[in-house]
Amino acid sequence: MKTSVIRKAHFNAAHRLNNPAWDSETNKRVFGKCNNDNYHGHNYNLFVKITGDINPDTGYVFDLGILSNLIKKHIEEPFDHRNLNLDTVEFKDLNPTAENIALVIYNKLRAQIDTAYDIKITLYETENNFVEYPAS
Amino acid sequence: MKTSVIRKAHFNAAHRLNNPAWDSETNKRVFGKCNNDNYHGHNYNLFVKITGDINPDTGYVFDLGILSNLIKKHIEEPFDHRNLNLDTVEFKDLNPTAENIALVIYNKLRAQIDTAYDIKITLYETENNFVEYPAS
Amino acid sequence: MKTSVIRKAHFNAAHRLNNPAWDSETNKRVFGKCNNDNYHGHNYNLFVKITGDINPDTGYVFDLGILSNLIKKHIEEPFDHRNLNLDTVEFKDLNPTAENIALVIYNKLRAQIDTAYDIKITLYETENNFVEYPAS
Amino acid sequence: MKTSVIRKAHFNAAHRLNNPAWDSETNKRVFGKCNNDNYHGHNYNLFVKITGDINPDTGYVFDLGILSNLIKKHIEEPFDHRNLNLDTVEFKDLNPTAENIALVIYNKLRAQIDTAYDIKITLYETENNFVEYPAS
Amino acid sequence: MKTSVIRKAHFNAAHRLNNPAWDSETNKRVFGKCNNDNYHGHNYNLFVKITGDINPDTGYVFDLGILSNLIKKHIEEPFDHRNLNLDTVEFKDLNPTAENIALVIYNKLRAQIDTAYDIKITLYETENNFVEYPAS
Amino acid sequence: MKTSVIRKAHFNAAHRLNNPAWDSETNKRVFGKCNNDNYHGHNYNLFVKITGDINPDTGYVFDLGILSNLIKKHIEEPFDHRNLNLDTVEFKDLNPTAENIALVIYNKLRAQIDTAYDIKITLYETENNFVEYPAS
Repeated sequence: MKTSVIRKAHFNAAHRLNNPAWDSETNKRVFGKCNNDNYHGHNYNLFVKITGDINPDTGYVFDLGILSNLIKKHIEEPFDHRNLNLDTVEFKDLNPTAENIALVIYNKLRAQIDTAYDIKITLYETENNFVEYPAS
Repeated sequence: MKTSVIRKAHFNAAHRLNNPAWDSETNKRVFGKCNNDNYHGHNYNLFVKITGDINPDTGYVFDLGILSNLIKKHIEEPFDHRNLNLDTVEFKDLNPTAENIALVIYNKLRAQIDTAYDIKITLYETENNFVEYPAS
Repeated sequence: MKTSVIRKAHFNAAHRLNNPAWDSETNKRVFGKCNNDNYHGHNYNLFVKITGDINPDTGYVFDLGILSNLIKKHIEEPFDHRNLNLDTVEFKDLNPTAENIALVIYNKLRAQIDTAYDIKITLYETENNFVEYPAS
Repeated sequence: MKTSVIRKAHFNAAHRLNNPAWDSETNKRVFGKCNNDNYHGHNYNLFVKITGDINPDTGYVFDLGILSNLIKKHIEEPFDHRNLNLDTVEFKDLNPTAENIALVIYNKLRAQIDTAYDIKITLYETENNFVEYPAS
Repeated sequence: MKTSVIRKAHFNAAHRLNNPAWDSETNKRVFGKCNNDNYHGHNYNLFVKITGDINPDTGYVFDLGILSNLIKKHIEEPFDHRNLNLDTVEFKDLNPTAENIALVIYNKLRAQIDTAYDIKITLYETENNFVEYPAS
Repeated sequence: MKTSVIRKAHFNAAHRLNNPAWDSETNKRVFGKCNNDNYHGHNYNLFVKITGDINPDTGYVFDLGILSNLIKKHIEEPFDHRNLNLDTVEFKDLNPTAENIALVIYNKLRAQIDTAYDIKITLYETENNFVEYPAS
């Protein structure tokens, strides 16, 4: 049986939900106040889960200090205290919903971590709304 | 791979655990202080998870505003600030344990949500005791 | 300068807000769904703060094990898994609002603890609604 | 002795810290990444405390339903899902630090609530950074 | 479909990460400050999940009072307010990483609970670092 | 009226409560399992509150980045992942109760921060037990 280890991180960002293929009225109807022209923002809480075998020499599945540094470099550095729509390449043409942010984070970390390990992302946009990718 | 979105809700209710097929002594032995004749109560915290594909037009799996309204209408409206044993039809003949409340909530929401989506209920009776249905 | 020590406790109870001097319509208007005839309930989170001097022999202001036992005996034992309106003497003629419950808890603990110590009660009825007595 | 009642609320907003009397370099030095040109954002958690006497007829210090509506109308409606710098009159010429936001919220609510009651604002910008006004 | 019930518990313990097969320099490099000679410590938060069928007579999957007592006897009693490296038999020759502690807890509880039930352990070493065994 | 700003920090440490002027039996009776010979440990959560006037140029009472660095240097560096009894000079001859740890932290930070500002320490030893110095 495998074991999972989970590391929490966070970043604070502005964003706005908008589909440029739609007119303003449709965007307002679908996204409501999340479509606000001048953006709004969130404290995003991120949980990265890595699943694998316990290394008998260390007792670790994956060194959480290394994971923390990967998250800092690949997620917090580009996203923290930024405007996701304006300041990032990832969301230039992708609507920054929590679902899409989780997917982007997954893909960025997947490229850094040996495929012997499974990865799962849980992203809290608020205490009341959060997402998981991939679904378990 | 699928994505899950989760919405938190809550309701405050009175309840009492009791099996009417048993005598009072057996109920006291099995349910302890949860069998108190005049009821006790909880702040129930509810998490509803919906799993599906990300819609490329919206970036949403399922609009959490719509989910929030479904929870308000079908769960909070009938259960919040009520006595589950006396004020609801669902628990007239069903013991309102956290397990059974989660099952009832699942069935009520399952009837409202397209079966293309999977649903999972997590219900906290207290910070120390909670249940999941269906088990993952 | 004095030091404060705080102990958390909790109890789960049913209650109903009602003023017997008023007619049903007035009670419904003032107390809304909190007036529900068959009660509702809460997980009450209680914080008891004791303020005094640090005893140089123990490094304690007040032994929190002793405080925990006082709370168990005088608060949790009579209130946990009870109906505050029906099962307690304290709220037989006193409306069990969070304010009044905090006042009752203060008076019950005040009688057990040396007046050399100040006491303060913080009582959470929900995560969103709580009270402090006495106000600081 | 007085009693306090506290109500929690929240709003999600974009903001940016900047002093227009300073050059860009000074703003970057003083405010760091909080000065990001395109804004960032937060989930602000707000606690409004009202202190007064318990009304013997209701058992309430202040009806938290009324307080909740005042917060909705005067704080959440203008601030939630907005850009504090661009979408509000209050922060047009005032740097939206947590300190200043708390002060603005205090003044807006102070104008709505009888001066027989004391008011205190606690505002969480993140789980790690928060402010109180006025200081107790 | 099965249902899961979860009980939270906690214990406070000292520990130190060290592989006696390695020299001191290697241990310092791999385990960093967790290798501190004189130990450090944590408030461990433990969640034990039991999955099975709802008993139609009780409405319970598994009596959480019984589970709480099993956790008290087999986990809290030997581990709480102890030094995991020095005061326990389980970690005499096993590095007390969160992964290994979760595995030990699983095995101890697995021996006490009917195999008709599945068991899962979630162990928080801190709010930011936690593990699950077995991985789901 | 003054404004307060609060910064959260944390450190994980081993400790043991013991009065060397007492015999072992007395120490066991007074401190119970906290007297365990081989230490136990906690995740300490620390809140440092600084009270002063809002600087009109910055909108800050006190730069929380500077406060965070002071806490890192003077509290986290010497205390995190240490044994308070064995690895620190502060608790060589002082019993490391939460009260005394808060007092030591206060004195260490008081020496670093202009006396124009008031300081208050809140220290959580566990979620259920915490202290404040000075008492408000």
